[in-house]
Amino acid sequence: MRYFMEPESTAIIGISRRSGPGSYNLMENMLHYGYQGRIFPINPQANEILGVKAYTNIRKVGLKIDLAIISLPRELVVKSVQECAEAGVKAVIVVGQGFADADVRGKILQHELIAIAKENGLRILGPNTLGVVNNFNNFTTSFMPLTREKSPVGLICQSGVFFVGAAVFSGQIGKGIDIGNACDIGFYEALKYFGDDPDIKIIAIHVEGLEHARPFLSLAGPIAREKPIVVFKTGQSEAGAKAAASHSGAMAGDYQIYRTALKQAGLLFLDEDGQMGDAVKTLLRQPPMKGNRIAVITVTGAGGIMATDALERYGLELASLSEKTISALADLSPEWMPLGNPLDLWPAVMKHGLRDIYTAILREVLADHNVDGALCISIAPKLPDFDFLDVSEQLNKIMDKKTEKPVVGWLYGPNVKEISEKFDKGNRITIYQTIEKAAWSLALLRERQQFLEKEDK
Amino acid sequence: MRYFMEPESTAIIGISRRSGPGSYNLMENMLHYGYQGRIFPINPQANEILGVKAYTNIRKVGLKIDLAIISLPRELVVKSVQECAEAGVKAVIVVGQGFADADVRGKILQHELIAIAKENGLRILGPNTLGVVNNFNNFTTSFMPLTREKSPVGLICQSGVFFVGAAVFSGQIGKGIDIGNACDIGFYEALKYFGDDPDIKIIAIHVEGLEHARPFLSLAGPIAREKPIVVFKTGQSEAGAKAAASHSGAMAGDYQIYRTALKQAGLLFLDEDGQMGDAVKTLLRQPPMKGNRIAVITVTGAGGIMATDALERYGLELASLSEKTISALADLSPEWMPLGNPLDLWPAVMKHGLRDIYTAILREVLADHNVDGALCISIAPKLPDFDFLDVSEQLNKIMDKKTEKPVVGWLYGPNVKEISEKFDKGNRITIYQTIEKAAWSLALLRERQQFLEKEDK
Repeated sequence: MRYFMEPESTAIIGISRRSGPGSYNLMENMLHYGYQGRIFPINPQANEILGVKAYTNIRKVGLKIDLAIISLPRELVVKSVQECAEAGVKAVIVVGQGFADADVRGKILQHELIAIAKENGLRILGPNTLGVVNNFNNFTTSFMPLTREKSPVGLICQSGVFFVGAAVFSGQIGKGIDIGNACDIGFYEALKYFGDDPDIKIIAIHVEGLEHARPFLSLAGPIAREKPIVVFKTGQSEAGAKAAASHSGAMAGDYQIYRTALKQAGLLFLDEDGQMGDAVKTLLRQPPMKGNRIAVITVTGAGGIMATDALERYGLELASLSEKTISALADLSPEWMPLGNPLDLWPAVMKHGLRDIYTAILREVLADHNVDGALCISIAPKLPDFDFLDVSEQLNKIMDKKTEKPVVGWLYGPNVKEISEKFDKGNRITIYQTIEKAAWSLALLRERQQFLEKEDK
Repeated sequence: MRYFMEPESTAIIGISRRSGPGSYNLMENMLHYGYQGRIFPINPQANEILGVKAYTNIRKVGLKIDLAIISLPRELVVKSVQECAEAGVKAVIVVGQGFADADVRGKILQHELIAIAKENGLRILGPNTLGVVNNFNNFTTSFMPLTREKSPVGLICQSGVFFVGAAVFSGQIGKGIDIGNACDIGFYEALKYFGDDPDIKIIAIHVEGLEHARPFLSLAGPIAREKPIVVFKTGQSEAGAKAAASHSGAMAGDYQIYRTALKQAGLLFLDEDGQMGDAVKTLLRQPPMKGNRIAVITVTGAGGIMATDALERYGLELASLSEKTISALADLSPEWMPLGNPLDLWPAVMKHGLRDIYTAILREVLADHNVDGALCISIAPKLPDFDFLDVSEQLNKIMDKKTEKPVVGWLYGPNVKEISEKFDKGNRITIYQTIEKAAWSLALLRERQQFLEKEDK
């Protein structure tokens, strides 16, 4: 995988002389991204491309080439890979479609690629792939522009949509490998690479079909002990599985069997396209949760009820709070206030102000031995006029002290974006778009802990 | 309800002389909001408040008072309501907590309020309420600042969180009634008011407990024919129901019974706190869906598979597209491309450009008699450099022509917010945060149509 992720020299075959918007010129994108290695553009009609000396054929380069990227119509790809082998290329990315994702002819062509790779000890990523992205060394083979962040998240996928839509799917990725049709490099090797990679702390995987599940699962279990692995399996339905076959050529297999097997191996299994971003955010920021007893702290009674409903949906329960925690709130509340969990702060707030009460109660909750995690609901007011209703700094400060309990939150009001960002900076209380998602995330942290305990035995 | 929503004169009892941030001064908020009626501040120690003549007791006003808002500690409320009755007040809002939401004493006090109301023909909203908001005449009784929009959405709720967090929950509201503990004015009258209100096209309801379900359902059915009604019921779980009892004093009842009964009456039933905003947005912009056959148009094969999975989850199916639709794409695609539904445009896009292809295919899909609705997946590129990948204007233009088929969409890429807003302006293709939500919304439109057909029989 090193030749794919950190090539010292890269040949680009089928590179156009056109550049600029609409040309999808991957050499231009690569230079723009900041690639530091040597580039050899290959084009039978050009002497130079974008100011770099071009060659009419890869065999004419005569220098060490770690990686070749082939963007040619499918009928020309087999010959091109053969030439790469002859030129001593270590790794080839086949970008184009029309192989196992297409017709019988495409399947035959893909088999020919596999044969050449095996014969020559050359490795192939693809076909039908955007290739790789590595934000730690500013390298990408994508012809589409990507956003970049040195995030400790490694993504393995079977579609470029996860590269281009990283912000939507996974909340940014640090490194990515699009295995496409996976004719040679597959999930196993990509996972092994990220498992060994010290830059990567979390691995996110999009699977259409997993052909050799057994070795993958044997590998994944031990890696998952160190680095959480989240998996989003598509082609869940019969119609979806059929669509997968004509997308990456994958055999989607039975969804429930996947679900059970992957969860048993300790992977965190996702069902919907909105969940990966929340999962990654949660696992990056929050510790595994030691039990399922949750304290809900809220400034809205209705929100507390919604939290209670959502927690139960995910197998979590309201903690029976210690007397000390309850009496801390009782001392501040009107005498008629029914007290318990959820801890409804509002009647006390009207009298004593929000900030002092929220910090006092969160502190009690974190110290309460009956509590494994907390779900906090607060308001996101307009600043600066209503800053006395913004508790982000005060709560962040409490969380600075080492606590092993996850704390998640939900905000409502006119200014959710700005106040969420203030919480984000503290990096200890993770804010979600809905109460439902906050509860779901606590359940994910519980599942993670249960796996780690199982493995400890 | 008119005295609550459009009072010509309003007394404010228990008004503080403090104003500005942190005072929660509802008179200040009311003036700031733009109330045009007459205000009578009632405060035993003040001659004037915020420049308006104050009275020591409501009985001293001696003028017609439509509405009185009482913000007093609970022990003072009963006497105050009695004085309102003597002063000829038509409607009273009791803001404070500590009634049926609290202890036995609170329950007794609430019963006394009901008795005074019945005796004097005076109506009470609350206790435990932010009151009302009416953005069509700039009136609110909330002591918390609200965002405002003349949106044709009427909200009935049992918590101020829906007023203050309207943007989070329902995507803005035009009018709102917080019935709180609902000691007198309840769901029935609030629903009737919005049912008759020409400003309101959609009614969103948050229920903790619905005490008199039968008359409510008899009323709701006929209204739902004209105006979609969405209901979010909280206190779903046993623990949640218990929490509801100490929030609004409501008996939450059995969730599945609610669910069945409300759905049967033609209400659209929501399960999670993130769904109300999507439901309102969908029903405001999209027509009911005549059948369950969906065309998926996508620029990412993987996205098409996710859409297929999600549609099946919600009981929708992939349309068997007409030959004409298929061949329109076939003419533009490479010969090896497997064609069907989802319509994967990408291989054609690389050759012919995205805009022409997307408009051509959407046009075919809208004309295809085998299709009842469409789910469109496209890219949200950086502008202006990559504007050739932005299809918002082109698709909006097609949709200008009257079509009776709902079209929903999902975008990925680095610029989702800006491109979504461009779609929003066209107001015909509704964009969702996830493919899952787009599919869910189509199912909601299907459910709506099925109810309308049932009623037509």
